[in-house]
Amino acid sequence: MKNFDINEDPHRRYNPLINEWVLVSPHRAKRPWQGQNETVASDALPEYDPTCYLCPGNIRANGMTNPEYENSFVFENDFAALKQEEILFEDSIKETFFKAQPERGISRVVCFSPKHNLTLPEMTVDGIENIIQTWQKEYIDLGKIDYINYVQIFENKGSVMGCSNPHPHGQIWAQSSLPTEVEKTQNNLKTYYDLHQSNLLQDYLQEELKLDERIVIENDHFVALVPFWAIWPYETMIISKRHFGKITDFTLDETTAFSTILKQLTTKYDNLFETSFPYSSGIHQTPTDGVSHPEWQFHMHFYPPLLRSATVKKFMVGYEMLGESQRDITPEKSASILKAISDTHYKNK
Amino acid sequence: MKNFDINEDPHRRYNPLINEWVLVSPHRAKRPWQGQNETVASDALPEYDPTCYLCPGNIRANGMTNPEYENSFVFENDFAALKQEEILFEDSIKETFFKAQPERGISRVVCFSPKHNLTLPEMTVDGIENIIQTWQKEYIDLGKIDYINYVQIFENKGSVMGCSNPHPHGQIWAQSSLPTEVEKTQNNLKTYYDLHQSNLLQDYLQEELKLDERIVIENDHFVALVPFWAIWPYETMIISKRHFGKITDFTLDETTAFSTILKQLTTKYDNLFETSFPYSSGIHQTPTDGVSHPEWQFHMHFYPPLLRSATVKKFMVGYEMLGESQRDITPEKSASILKAISDTHYKNK
Ligand SMILES: O=P(O)(O)O[C@H]1O[C@H](CO)[C@@H](O)[C@H](O)[C@H]1O
Ligand SMILES: O=P(O)(O)O[C@H]1O[C@H](CO)[C@@H](O)[C@H](O)[C@H]1O
Repeated sequence: MKNFDINEDPHRRYNPLINEWVLVSPHRAKRPWQGQNETVASDALPEYDPTCYLCPGNIRANGMTNPEYENSFVFENDFAALKQEEILFEDSIKETFFKAQPERGISRVVCFSPKHNLTLPEMTVDGIENIIQTWQKEYIDLGKIDYINYVQIFENKGSVMGCSNPHPHGQIWAQSSLPTEVEKTQNNLKTYYDLHQSNLLQDYLQEELKLDERIVIENDHFVALVPFWAIWPYETMIISKRHFGKITDFTLDETTAFSTILKQLTTKYDNLFETSFPYSSGIHQTPTDGVSHPEWQFHMHFYPPLLRSATVKKFMVGYEMLGESQRDITPEKSASILKAISDTHYKNK
Repeated sequence: MKNFDINEDPHRRYNPLINEWVLVSPHRAKRPWQGQNETVASDALPEYDPTCYLCPGNIRANGMTNPEYENSFVFENDFAALKQEEILFEDSIKETFFKAQPERGISRVVCFSPKHNLTLPEMTVDGIENIIQTWQKEYIDLGKIDYINYVQIFENKGSVMGCSNPHPHGQIWAQSSLPTEVEKTQNNLKTYYDLHQSNLLQDYLQEELKLDERIVIENDHFVALVPFWAIWPYETMIISKRHFGKITDFTLDETTAFSTILKQLTTKYDNLFETSFPYSSGIHQTPTDGVSHPEWQFHMHFYPPLLRSATVKKFMVGYEMLGESQRDITPEKSASILKAISDTHYKNK
């Protein structure tokens, strides 16, 4: 009988953050692809697009005019999934099959730059620091509203990720409940903390730094790595080296270091297939529920769908929806590819 | 303060099958769409395609020739995610951060018909019965292999669901572990069974039949409905009226009734946007682990991505990946639309 070789044999890996497994099929990367090809975003966008509802000075769907903003610009989502209105509601928590409750919240859009064609990897470190400051301000402003208990900062980049406008922007959905994925994460962080009096992700990071098999970038304050349990082909996570829970805990040095690692990571992504690399990314951090959360650890997830080229993505469909997430390339292989890639943007070569 | 109106106000609903929530934003359906459009599958496919690796008599990637099959045809997946080989493995279950274990299994492809252009809704009830018999045979054959503890039957339909060949076919991945989603479902069915000595889905079905707000199709033996907690815009579930756990428990009448409801449901789907409707579907049923499972109930999920037209799908991206699933149209609205739609295929009108 053959000995288990994690680089060759089909296996499952466990994600301790959400208590779920992923099926890894290293040998399957050789599969030919005859399915759908994605359309590649044009590299040749103008700096200003008169038809873009995010460009400075333009009019949005609701009739409002964007200011002539110079750095980032935040506004309330014109088609928000959440509403601020307070709703009267009799508790139906005892229902077994028809459990529902109103959800209050605020959705905002964060334009990263006035320039229509300037995505994160092509911004300056200063420019990205300005976005981080905007995120900090929003986390504080939204978090202090008393019914807001969680502030979800995220970005959908690229049309393949449902992004309807290439103008660089992210979103913030702040709400009264902990969203499902955040609640799962919190539960597992909490269980670990109660058991070990230490932080799951800090302890994990120490092990990863020792092994040095999945580290993509390391600087004085942050590490970008492919998690052992990553599901997307080039999924990564950025973890701070110091233990703290939220973006407002950054020192000034940490702000610069985070901005730098964001620029480097997204540049490596763009360089991988020489395309503006699509992904969804987002920050997981301490809830704003007014309770102390020593179990929390600030981190950021990147979930990029591309598998083999600018046009071939991984589909999380049938088996993945009914069974469990499945990946072809191993996290170690992905990490070594990303690590080796230059962090000078291909357009500047 | 306004009273909670589930048809108008943002709210969360609870899914007792997997113990997760979904965010519902009924008012958001009015949002204009400026993002990616899907390409529509051509209606004009030939009955036989000489370049198709699933058509009878053609040669597959591995050099094998398909037989001149007349109904369904099953073969081992040429690029299987799972392998049958037994792997020697020392238990690493005590690992916290690097928990992995080899996974043994078999992946098969099930061609539904020799005709390249004949999808489920356009097949005869007899033809679909033949597929059901094939699924039964596979469930038995794979299930009796002693290391196989779960048999996942599923279909990816349409290029938007990662399906690389329009020739009507599904897949079966059979493996030694319970996949994540199946395990979650089993845990919740079990908890309910232990508490009530009855089946969660049977009790749920009784309530749904009484309310008659989310029922799409009902016949003597099966019901197709939009679950109260559905996440995809036109997601449905087929549940048997009689309590049994697996496809091999079907009586002959139930086989005909299941075939009929499959044909009707997929026809309604095609008619919704007058297009060959993409989806991933799959059966959840009793594990083949040799243990008695009174908590299990045979059911089938349909997860279709389209939202507004043949070309506009719902993207489960940023917020959904980091936070929780989010839907715009309510399940009640979707059910009433599907219920009202004809079950005579639009091509035959
Ligand atoms: O096996 P296929 O049809 O080539 O591949 C498709 O279905 C599989 C099972 O859901 C997925 O893992 C693949 O990502 C998808 O492209
Ligand atoms: O808000 P947007 O960018 O219009 O929409 C996009 O992101 C949202 C949040 O992840 C998703 O709910 C939508 O399905 C997606 O198209």
